[in-house]
Amino acid sequence: MTADDLDLTIERLGTCRIPSPVSVGHFTQDNENVLFQVALPDIETCLAAGKKPSVFEQAGPREKIYFDPSKLKCGIVTCGGLCPGLNDVIRSIVLSLHHHYGVKTVFGFPYGYEGLTYRYGHTPLELTTKAVERIHEQGGTILGSSRGPQDISEMVDTLERMNIGVLFTIGGDGTLKGAKAISDEVTKRGLKISVIGIPKTIDNDISYVQKSFGFETAVSEARRAIYSAHSEALCARNGVGLVKLMGRESGFIASYATLACNDVNFCLIPESPFTLQAFLKALEARLQLRGHAVVVVAEGAGQNLLENTGDLDASGNIRFEDIGIFLRDEIINFFKKSKTQISMKYIDPSYTIRSVPANASDAAFSLLLGQNAVHAAMTGRTNMVVGTWMNRFTHVPIAVAVSKRKKIDPDGWMWASVLTTTGQPRNMLNPDLQ
Amino acid sequence: MTADDLDLTIERLGTCRIPSPVSVGHFTQDNENVLFQVALPDIETCLAAGKKPSVFEQAGPREKIYFDPSKLKCGIVTCGGLCPGLNDVIRSIVLSLHHHYGVKTVFGFPYGYEGLTYRYGHTPLELTTKAVERIHEQGGTILGSSRGPQDISEMVDTLERMNIGVLFTIGGDGTLKGAKAISDEVTKRGLKISVIGIPKTIDNDISYVQKSFGFETAVSEARRAIYSAHSEALCARNGVGLVKLMGRESGFIASYATLACNDVNFCLIPESPFTLQAFLKALEARLQLRGHAVVVVAEGAGQNLLENTGDLDASGNIRFEDIGIFLRDEIINFFKKSKTQISMKYIDPSYTIRSVPANASDAAFSLLLGQNAVHAAMTGRTNMVVGTWMNRFTHVPIAVAVSKRKKIDPDGWMWASVLTTTGQPRNMLNPDLQ
Amino acid sequence: MTADDLDLTIERLGTCRIPSPVSVGHFTQDNENVLFQVALPDIETCLAAGKKPSVFEQAGPREKIYFDPSKLKCGIVTCGGLCPGLNDVIRSIVLSLHHHYGVKTVFGFPYGYEGLTYRYGHTPLELTTKAVERIHEQGGTILGSSRGPQDISEMVDTLERMNIGVLFTIGGDGTLKGAKAISDEVTKRGLKISVIGIPKTIDNDISYVQKSFGFETAVSEARRAIYSAHSEALCARNGVGLVKLMGRESGFIASYATLACNDVNFCLIPESPFTLQAFLKALEARLQLRGHAVVVVAEGAGQNLLENTGDLDASGNIRFEDIGIFLRDEIINFFKKSKTQISMKYIDPSYTIRSVPANASDAAFSLLLGQNAVHAAMTGRTNMVVGTWMNRFTHVPIAVAVSKRKKIDPDGWMWASVLTTTGQPRNMLNPDLQ
Amino acid sequence: MTADDLDLTIERLGTCRIPSPVSVGHFTQDNENVLFQVALPDIETCLAAGKKPSVFEQAGPREKIYFDPSKLKCGIVTCGGLCPGLNDVIRSIVLSLHHHYGVKTVFGFPYGYEGLTYRYGHTPLELTTKAVERIHEQGGTILGSSRGPQDISEMVDTLERMNIGVLFTIGGDGTLKGAKAISDEVTKRGLKISVIGIPKTIDNDISYVQKSFGFETAVSEARRAIYSAHSEALCARNGVGLVKLMGRESGFIASYATLACNDVNFCLIPESPFTLQAFLKALEARLQLRGHAVVVVAEGAGQNLLENTGDLDASGNIRFEDIGIFLRDEIINFFKKSKTQISMKYIDPSYTIRSVPANASDAAFSLLLGQNAVHAAMTGRTNMVVGTWMNRFTHVPIAVAVSKRKKIDPDGWMWASVLTTTGQPRNMLNPDLQ
Repeated sequence: MTADDLDLTIERLGTCRIPSPVSVGHFTQDNENVLFQVALPDIETCLAAGKKPSVFEQAGPREKIYFDPSKLKCGIVTCGGLCPGLNDVIRSIVLSLHHHYGVKTVFGFPYGYEGLTYRYGHTPLELTTKAVERIHEQGGTILGSSRGPQDISEMVDTLERMNIGVLFTIGGDGTLKGAKAISDEVTKRGLKISVIGIPKTIDNDISYVQKSFGFETAVSEARRAIYSAHSEALCARNGVGLVKLMGRESGFIASYATLACNDVNFCLIPESPFTLQAFLKALEARLQLRGHAVVVVAEGAGQNLLENTGDLDASGNIRFEDIGIFLRDEIINFFKKSKTQISMKYIDPSYTIRSVPANASDAAFSLLLGQNAVHAAMTGRTNMVVGTWMNRFTHVPIAVAVSKRKKIDPDGWMWASVLTTTGQPRNMLNPDLQ
Repeated sequence: MTADDLDLTIERLGTCRIPSPVSVGHFTQDNENVLFQVALPDIETCLAAGKKPSVFEQAGPREKIYFDPSKLKCGIVTCGGLCPGLNDVIRSIVLSLHHHYGVKTVFGFPYGYEGLTYRYGHTPLELTTKAVERIHEQGGTILGSSRGPQDISEMVDTLERMNIGVLFTIGGDGTLKGAKAISDEVTKRGLKISVIGIPKTIDNDISYVQKSFGFETAVSEARRAIYSAHSEALCARNGVGLVKLMGRESGFIASYATLACNDVNFCLIPESPFTLQAFLKALEARLQLRGHAVVVVAEGAGQNLLENTGDLDASGNIRFEDIGIFLRDEIINFFKKSKTQISMKYIDPSYTIRSVPANASDAAFSLLLGQNAVHAAMTGRTNMVVGTWMNRFTHVPIAVAVSKRKKIDPDGWMWASVLTTTGQPRNMLNPDLQ
Repeated sequence: MTADDLDLTIERLGTCRIPSPVSVGHFTQDNENVLFQVALPDIETCLAAGKKPSVFEQAGPREKIYFDPSKLKCGIVTCGGLCPGLNDVIRSIVLSLHHHYGVKTVFGFPYGYEGLTYRYGHTPLELTTKAVERIHEQGGTILGSSRGPQDISEMVDTLERMNIGVLFTIGGDGTLKGAKAISDEVTKRGLKISVIGIPKTIDNDISYVQKSFGFETAVSEARRAIYSAHSEALCARNGVGLVKLMGRESGFIASYATLACNDVNFCLIPESPFTLQAFLKALEARLQLRGHAVVVVAEGAGQNLLENTGDLDASGNIRFEDIGIFLRDEIINFFKKSKTQISMKYIDPSYTIRSVPANASDAAFSLLLGQNAVHAAMTGRTNMVVGTWMNRFTHVPIAVAVSKRKKIDPDGWMWASVLTTTGQPRNMLNPDLQ
Repeated sequence: MTADDLDLTIERLGTCRIPSPVSVGHFTQDNENVLFQVALPDIETCLAAGKKPSVFEQAGPREKIYFDPSKLKCGIVTCGGLCPGLNDVIRSIVLSLHHHYGVKTVFGFPYGYEGLTYRYGHTPLELTTKAVERIHEQGGTILGSSRGPQDISEMVDTLERMNIGVLFTIGGDGTLKGAKAISDEVTKRGLKISVIGIPKTIDNDISYVQKSFGFETAVSEARRAIYSAHSEALCARNGVGLVKLMGRESGFIASYATLACNDVNFCLIPESPFTLQAFLKALEARLQLRGHAVVVVAEGAGQNLLENTGDLDASGNIRFEDIGIFLRDEIINFFKKSKTQISMKYIDPSYTIRSVPANASDAAFSLLLGQNAVHAAMTGRTNMVVGTWMNRFTHVPIAVAVSKRKKIDPDGWMWASVLTTTGQPRNMLNPDLQ
């Protein structure tokens, strides 16, 4: 990844003149930053070329803020699929606005961007501290969610009409693109509305953001499904446990769950293509050797094997034929042909993974994301997301965050660790080459 | 349920002459029993008719035993689908044989009745106390399992050749029928082999047995799936969470899970038939009223609505068309026709429910079942299962246990409680009658 | 237990004239009952003596009710220590009153009987269906609790002044005695107020009630503590894991947790006294044999060994010296004297056991208890608790429920199973007799 | 933290000449590294001063290795207190040695450094792949553990006699110091034995190592205890829930658990001293305002308030008087004096936190630590630990890792976040200054 052309400058609505009411005795300075690249040779190369290494601005409370808390109204919207931690982030934003800055009015817009669009007729919820008291103990989002874009102009109309000063948008790639469009329209109209994104992607595939909330909980729940697949596979002659996990364009959940539950014999991810024949031969070899096998497949894996339906879902994602069902049927047929009796147990745990409350790690992380989103917003920063990089909380321009998807490097250490853990063939493209 | 014709007499291989080595100071007497019916009017009616009320023999250690522990060899086999607690029962049998009676040799036959059949070539496992030390912490069965009957004569040959004195069979309806056939063949050959069943049915549908092991764990895990369905349904406009649970002929899991997680709006079970039209109209009404709905369906529900495939699975169970998939598609189509946009989330958690380790309650219960199975076996009782009735452990002739399936009484208190909890229409057969 | 003198007749405020609005098509008849004793010989003896066997009235909705739902106001109070399921019971009562009978006004009195006593100044909470929506997901009680009695007359004044028709009291032995006193005072004043108890005892020691809510969750959590004690003990040379569990007068939690987690080597309960010397010698023998040991002790065990402090707590219970701390120190001293280096790990998990949400089994059970309490109340029954007997829900006069404590029979099957599971000496009173 | 004097060079036994058998297609190059400091200004300052910024060597498999796998024998030892993930690390080392390099002989030395010392008479366990198959599902360590140092010379004798080529030591500060002493003695004797540490500190206080295994699981379990304390506190008038957590010299667990479970009102850690008076006044104010309070205290907090016992434990740690018990009693006395009735619930969950199996995140992390420890060992690196820095696995000289303890910066962002989350006074040293 070369970072030379990354523009990591954060937009601002204006100058910060108001002393911050935050009373913790620690303020982040505007020049505190984190290097994008943390290997010395990269930095030396960059400096030798006369360039300044790319750095992320560090998040945190500032001494001076832009908005007057006593007059500020904020809005929150959650979009796309469920993800553990959504309610934690909502709660953290509301509590931080209230307790740290004294902002009294926070609205929750129901059902994603629909809630900002007049014609759906959804009534905004007033998010008091009482209203969010125990919501972090519940899965899902108290605001509800929906997929897909809405008319940008209408949404900015709503913000303008309701006199919203900050809009917090919690969502994935599509949602952030929408947030950017809203921010651009806000600028065009000369409004002073800050748009702050909190990246939500259970797949962990937002670029320039090291980890997204809900990911660890998802891996935890995925491990439960793999545990079950392993039990089932072990207890039958030629038992095959097949688990489909989330991961449309990247195999992070599948890979980490494999590392967390090392009963997996094959981990199939989008970044490492395979042919059906090579995979089936390797599976057959495994069954002959050990009498059972566990296969984990990310939903975006093996797309080369599937018919392109050409459809898009409401969020504009390509609707894939289901690789889980496809593999299940192909495995059954393959062994039927070879007259080997197998016992196939297929598990698709997606909804049960994404709808649970955040685990401890994600709860703490979501809390900090929410607090840092509020700190950024209060300074008038806009058109940015709150992320993490090298264990520090950072500010990232939305444009950069949505510029590409984060993927597992098939030649990197992580995938190597997965391969050494499963013992699967490195190369399942050519059945003769292993 | 009239009990007048129940023959609850337990078969025995011979007279108990050997003093029991069990040293706990409490022995069950052979005349200790439990009434089948526990309402006074039933007992009075029975006595008035000059009949003796039916009673179950009470389980427990006896002062005299039949088998000489120093010479006894035992075998254990687990059949059919996975169920939480299988390893607990295996472990309890092994430890009780060893520690309480001093029986040193216990074999585990792999992969169900296959393991007793020569031609499969499976090698019996020797189950030492060391081998079973921590197996209760694992889901599944360390013996493996398989479905379907095997040749009775071949299996008895194996028992005879290996000089097995007691065979413990852990399995459901089909397995117990097999156990009865083995026991009958044993009698025909004049052998002295005791066959003791431990009823395993995650559906809880063995008759004359109040509760089977694994059921509470199953309800616990089912509650997790319903929780997720509820989260998903709540967070979408017109969200419908549909969960398919086990329950081929009876709706115990679906009903108890509904009571345990009272976010369910419709609980559909085999014992209470419904028409598609009535259900869909009720679902539509619910969505109009509250904007989301949770539906739980037992796999054997609504069979009148499905095409009869005529197929049988390896265990001889009728292969149903999948009611979960069927309902999912019918609901989607129904609302598509009425141009109502809904969000359908379908969850089929069956494998993840049945493959987990037993919870505390099932662990204690499985331990006691195993101990009581051993106590019964040592006295030479045979052709029986260990069950529970009115919170006491009992002996039940296999013939009685497999005589019919236990079902929920659609006119009884349990179903009434489910209906009052969900608020669903009592009658979904006629859409006009509610 | 002879039941000949048990008066199980339930008091009533008057005749039921109002048709029930409950619409589930199943009504319990007043003559439906459950035998107190369920072994045939006991029944025969009783009948031979010309007596009628004792029966419990069966709980459930009746066709006619006493109170007019449109005018009825109800109150709920929770007293004593926390117990999993408290919020489930509260919620079930509120929802059943509202949805099944149309009762609109339900008050929650804060902090136990304090909430009914003017001088504490607590304001009653109005318990709407919205207010109780998700409370079952929280441990504890939303009403708060307190220990100890309050002035009966003042409390009846409050009920009268607020025009409460039914008071639901959720609590243990002391609370139920208070409820009885309230009911007696109500009768004395000629008021028409029904007092219905829901027995809450995490120790499971209410007589004539088979199981109380929260018990299974408690065993579940206790198993976690024992698991930790076992891990710790195993990983150290001469590791001793000592766990103190609840059980003031009876060892149900300790015994069931031992059965559920059979790593326990010594289970010490109030019903089976022991001398320190005998126990320590047995522990020494165990350590010499296996190098580690796990000891579970109920808080009321070994009271003969402790100094009588003479103190009472706010609920009037004798304040015991802490047997856990006592044993920990005695064990350490004993091995110090014998110059054996041991590693003692003492765990007292009481608060973490009792404050968690109900597990699935207790959730369903609490729901049904609440519904049946409401059904009983609506018919004007009073001075009774809702219990279970032989897996049916029953009505039990408070006077009977508080007449004595339920205990484990040291000569019965349960304790025998515990002894066979731990392998501990049957008799630890005399160190020479084992 | 200035890093200018850090010598991060890793010792090696000799030149790597043997091609690695690891077949994953990704090898780490020796010049791959990670900057110690990742803020650009620090790097610029360093370069401007003509110094080279400190970098950690990156972990991972190398193309050439030092040891001949066919002849290598390895040993593993686990020391000190239990920590979630110990068995995962052991298992990962054994499987990686076996599957990746073909090393067949791995010994586990029982009960920590005792196992390396002849006079204790412990027999080493042979760790086959079968022996470690499911150990990751168990808490604790299958090797057992002990505290305290043993004679270095004797331990090296054992290694020499058994012909051990690599010793993996899993333990905390004291253990690593012992490992360094062993390594130094090895060098002195001119032996070719690699000593590789895997830092184990549930307190997360090893310097120059970003995160240690088991920490996230510990926070998770700590959250459960706080949840209970919160339930208890909420349900009583003036309820005070007090939880003592691990953290002898640093408050990481207390702080993260506070962020993960934001019901905490006071978080007390060693890095932020307080006076009893100031704390009690703040607690009183909180109770007056809200009627309940939750206090979390790290075991090393408030040491200034305690009597110095002067004792050391077997590991050489100062034995503190127990701050939890101290605070519990002081709080009770304070409110007794002011005649305020409070309800104190004290929870000390330490053993139940540290003895559970690793959660998913720690399981994956432990696996990778074990694999990277093996990769480092095979190259003949020695006298080092495997750590993480900026999300990369690193090599750190033991001398550096034990040079000081990692602590929370009381002026940094983390503590600021804790303060904003609890709302506790920033300064509890002077009761007048807040």
